[in-house]
Parts: sequence; structure tokens; C-alpha cells
Amino acid sequence: MAGLVNSSPSSQLPGDFKDLFLRVGPQMVALDRFVRQQVDCFEPEIRDMAAYCLDSTGKRLRPTMVFISGWKGDGIVSDDLVRAAGVVEMVHLATLVHDDIMDRADLRRNRRTASREFGPDAAVLLGDALFSQALHIASLFPTTEVCRLVAGSTRKVCSGEIMQTLRRRDITISLAEYRRMIDLKTAELFRASCFLGAKLSGYAEDFVQAADHFGHHLGIAYQIYDDLVDFVGEEHRIGKTLGTDLATGKLTLPLMLLLEQVSAEERAAIGAALRGGHPLGLAASRQRMTELGIAGRVVTAIDEELRLAARGLEPFADLAPVPLMLQLGSMLKAQVATLQTSAVAG
Amino acid sequence: MAGLVNSSPSSQLPGDFKDLFLRVGPQMVALDRFVRQQVDCFEPEIRDMAAYCLDSTGKRLRPTMVFISGWKGDGIVSDDLVRAAGVVEMVHLATLVHDDIMDRADLRRNRRTASREFGPDAAVLLGDALFSQALHIASLFPTTEVCRLVAGSTRKVCSGEIMQTLRRRDITISLAEYRRMIDLKTAELFRASCFLGAKLSGYAEDFVQAADHFGHHLGIAYQIYDDLVDFVGEEHRIGKTLGTDLATGKLTLPLMLLLEQVSAEERAAIGAALRGGHPLGLAASRQRMTELGIAGRVVTAIDEELRLAARGLEPFADLAPVPLMLQLGSMLKAQVATLQTSAVAG
Repeated sequence: MAGLVNSSPSSQLPGDFKDLFLRVGPQMVALDRFVRQQVDCFEPEIRDMAAYCLDSTGKRLRPTMVFISGWKGDGIVSDDLVRAAGVVEMVHLATLVHDDIMDRADLRRNRRTASREFGPDAAVLLGDALFSQALHIASLFPTTEVCRLVAGSTRKVCSGEIMQTLRRRDITISLAEYRRMIDLKTAELFRASCFLGAKLSGYAEDFVQAADHFGHHLGIAYQIYDDLVDFVGEEHRIGKTLGTDLATGKLTLPLMLLLEQVSAEERAAIGAALRGGHPLGLAASRQRMTELGIAGRVVTAIDEELRLAARGLEPFADLAPVPLMLQLGSMLKAQVATLQTSAVAG
Repeated sequence: MAGLVNSSPSSQLPGDFKDLFLRVGPQMVALDRFVRQQVDCFEPEIRDMAAYCLDSTGKRLRPTMVFISGWKGDGIVSDDLVRAAGVVEMVHLATLVHDDIMDRADLRRNRRTASREFGPDAAVLLGDALFSQALHIASLFPTTEVCRLVAGSTRKVCSGEIMQTLRRRDITISLAEYRRMIDLKTAELFRASCFLGAKLSGYAEDFVQAADHFGHHLGIAYQIYDDLVDFVGEEHRIGKTLGTDLATGKLTLPLMLLLEQVSAEERAAIGAALRGGHPLGLAASRQRMTELGIAGRVVTAIDEELRLAARGLEPFADLAPVPLMLQLGSMLKAQVATLQTSAVAG
């Protein structure tokens, strides 16, 4: 979600979003410092490689969710939240290192991927080391709860990624299976981030559950948005190679909706293009998605998830985190609208 | 260490070893049951794959070290030790899944590797899921200590493996660097296993430290033994593809000692064969190791580590774990002797 929440200047953001960006600023500064300190925990032989992966130019969406779900007031920076944010971000970065091996991706955030920089073999192990260090940080909390939650969530994320890998180029996948896959691979860590934020800040159990529910639905919405970016985004703005989902045969909601709408004959042709990784066939698929207005249906699906996310927060409107959480949902909605405009224009 | 400690019939083992094998039997049965139960903790979509990797035909050396370092008497099976043994074994199995991807190995324990069975991409993620579940089990202990220890050890194991990967085919590696590499990639988890066994059984801190020291040196000895197996072992007895260290350019002690003893010209030729993965050159290297009696020097290095391991236990001769720990050291020594005989004969 380029430009949504990151450490680059926020001058292009509309007022509301600039506000959220500025408000989590002190937390992000503390997170930066924390992550830099973590580099020294790695064995000297791999420290530079770890530092390369822990680079801070990412969107930091999961840390943002930890911070705002546990919000106590402006300028209040809790060590526990910073540490939890560090854990979820490192787990996420580890999964990216492994994802980029499988996707044979060269570029992420306008830099070479770890797989491209150090080779895929070293990148497998480097991802493992990042996972391990994330769990090590989790074990520094007084109780085992954070470790248990993060280890369980990580296992689920991996399960979702395995489903995705095994079903690549398989156009028989159902919408229910797709939903289950993104629940695991994306929504799980969003959910855990919100749960941890609310829990570690000492909010009551009913709000912790609402935060959990919010994180889950925002995660689903975000994954569908990410699916959409891959086919209508502009590469130079997003900072990563686009069209890779199609090229690598990843089953995304736009593709699934396309397959649902076309004739059996066209479906077979798309399936063949996917299996062969045929560039012309894939370009044609992207063209067809535009013709059939697939983006509109995808946006409807995102809006529905954002609505569900927000609805669960209604009973807690007076709690400090809620306005910020709703603002994050609105930001994603606005980001989707921008993308949709460019898709229609393109 | 084929036939050293596993669940196959022990009828070929000499009396002493049969004794150790029989004494940890009840613990191994409990571990089997525990590991089988763990399969159900994985998401249904990946359960069969997890079960494939958690297959119980391995040597279970690390669980054995947990059990004997925490020994309290025959037939006493502690749930804590079984759980700790499950954790270290799962971490080990996860590293094997990732190792086999990098080594392009087809066979392990007479079965196809996970990488060969499910493809390397799925195997990366499956290894991650095994790691995560191991840490999840570790988080079920009442305090965070096991999690902290296991996460830290896992990070070190990965660091050692990264060193190994980056230095493949690089004959300029020093003995100190080799030593550091095997400290991390192998001895660390042996050390952690012994520490956990002694600690969880409530032994005093000075014995816990001695167990830790024992595990460290036994781990070094075991890795050097494993290096030796790769060049003098018989494939049908070991149950995995041998000669792979040389073929994949892994720097082992036999190879390093060979490089130390030959002329600059021969060293350059071996370096070229390693870089090119040239089968004839590699066969010649194995031949030269035999001619130069490298195996004898490797065995001396193993014996020295076993001596250091045993010496640290001297002040604790009256504690229940110590006779079993010394017996394990003797078993490795005997196994090495058998291997040496076959090497000389070959």
C-alpha cells in the first residue's frame, strides 16, 4: 500500500491521512530504533544481511495496527507495543524474503530482493534467522502469551502460503478456498497485530475481541486490494514488479472473477496461458478484466470487508483507539478509489 | 549416525549400546505419541505434508540427549522432557527440510526428501511451518525460558548454515572459521538439548552447565563424524545420498585436512574440481584422502572432542544422567571406529 503509511514525507496525503501518519510518528521513530538495535542480536557473520532485510522503508502496516489498536493518547509510546510491533514486522519481513524466492522476484521497495542479492539458498536461511529472532523477541515478554500467539499465527501464514503454492495455475480453485487461503496468508497476521495492540495496552476483553475482528477483516480487504494493485497498478509508483501474480500463476480475486464471467472456451485459454506463463495470453487476460469491469466487483468486495471491520467497533466508539482504526479503514478505501480511477482511465 | 539410536530393532548392537537403547525406550514411545499428536495442530490443508516430515524413522539423537541429560531413573517419563525433546526434534527436522532444498538431495532416510516430494517452493514453507509449530510447543511451558533458548539456538543454527552456504567451494576457509561454522550449525542444538534436559529435570546449575558443555563438545564430535561418513560411508547402510558434501562443495574437515597436506598445484586442481562440481576430480579427491590417511587425523579430532565432553562430567559421576551421557559418547567413539575400519578396508 505504497504511500499509505510509511516514513517518507507525507506531503501528498489528504489531511485526514496526514493526521494519522503524524500521530503514529513517535511510535514509528521508536520502532525504527528498536529494529536497528535488533541487528546487533544477529551473529556477526550475518549481521549485514539481516540489516539489509530489516531496512525500514516498508509500509509498516502491521506495526501501525499494533500501535493504533493499543492507542492510549498522543505521544504515549509503550515499550511493549514497540516490541510487539517489532515482532510482527520481523515475521512479515521473513515471509517476504521467502515469498520473493518463490516468486523469483528481483525487486521489492525499489531494491533488489534478498534472494537476488544473496542468492536463493542464503535467502531461505536468512528468512529462517529473521523468524527465529522475531520469536526470540516475543519470548522477552513476561509471559508466554505473545510467543504462543505469534508462533501460531506464523504457522497459519505459512499454511496459507503453501495452499497458494500448491494451487498455482489451478483455475479450479473455489471462492471459498481462495477466502480460506487469504484468511491464513494475510488476515491472520493483521488480526494478531490488532489483538496484541489492544491486549498489551490492557483494554478489556470485549474490545480486544473487537480489535481482533477488525484486524481480520481489514486484512482480507488489504489482500484483495493487493490483488487488484497487481493488475491495475503503476509499477513506478508501487516500487515492485507488477503483473507477477498473473505471471507466477497466483490465483487472485480479479482473476477468479474473470474466470467466472467468461465462456468455457475463453476460460480454457486463460488456464493454458497461466500454465504456460505465456506473456501475450496474460496481457490479454488483464485487458479482459478491464473490459468486463472486474475492478468494480473487486472494489465492492473490499468495501464489504471494510464495512464489517468498522461495524465491530461501533460499541466502542468512545475508546481512544477506535477513531484511528476507522481512519485506517478509510485510508484503504480512498487508496482503492484512486486505483480504480487509474484503472478506468487506463 | 545410522543404527546408533533409533526405533529399529537393536539386535545388532553390542551389549552396552543395546542397554542405552532399551533404557530410553519408554521416553521414545512417549515422544512418538507426542509427535503424532502434533500433526493435528497443523492446518488441515498441510497436515499430510507435516506428517510426512514428522516421520519417526530418524535417529532422534537430540531427543536422546534431552532424555539422558535429564535422567531421573529407569521408566520415569517426564512430560516436560518429552515436550522439550519434541521441540528440538521438530526444529531439527525443519532445518533438514531446508537443507535438502539447498543440497538438491533426493533421498533421506531411504525416502524422498520433502523438496523432492512436494517441490522446493512448498518445502521452504513447510520448513517454516515446522519451525513455527516447534516454537508454539515451546511456548506451552509455564515460563518463556524454553522459547527464548530455542528461538536463539535456531537463529544460531541458521547463521551457521548461512556461513556454510556462502563459503561453499571456497577453499580459503580457515580451520577457525570451520570450527565456528559447526559450533553454530550443529553443536548449538546439541548444547541446547542437554541444557534443557538437565534444567527441566531440576538439576543444580553447576550440572546444567556441565551438561551444556557436554552437549557442545558431543555436537562438534558428531558433526566431524558426519563429515567423515560422507566420504567413507556406505550408502546402503546410511540411507542417504553420500559424497554430497564434496559434490555440493561443502567444506568438511576431511577436505580441509586434505587441502592442508597437498601441494599448491594439487590444491588448485581440487579447488577447480569443487567449483566445477566435476565428478572425476571429486572421486580423485576421495581417493587422495584415503592415500594420505586423512581419516586417521579426523578420528583424532573426534576423540579429542569426546574427551573434552566426558571430562566436564567428572565432578558429577554420582548423578543419574552421567553414566548414560558417557555411554552415548562411547557409542559415537565405537561408531567412528567401525567407520574407520571400513575406510581402511575400502
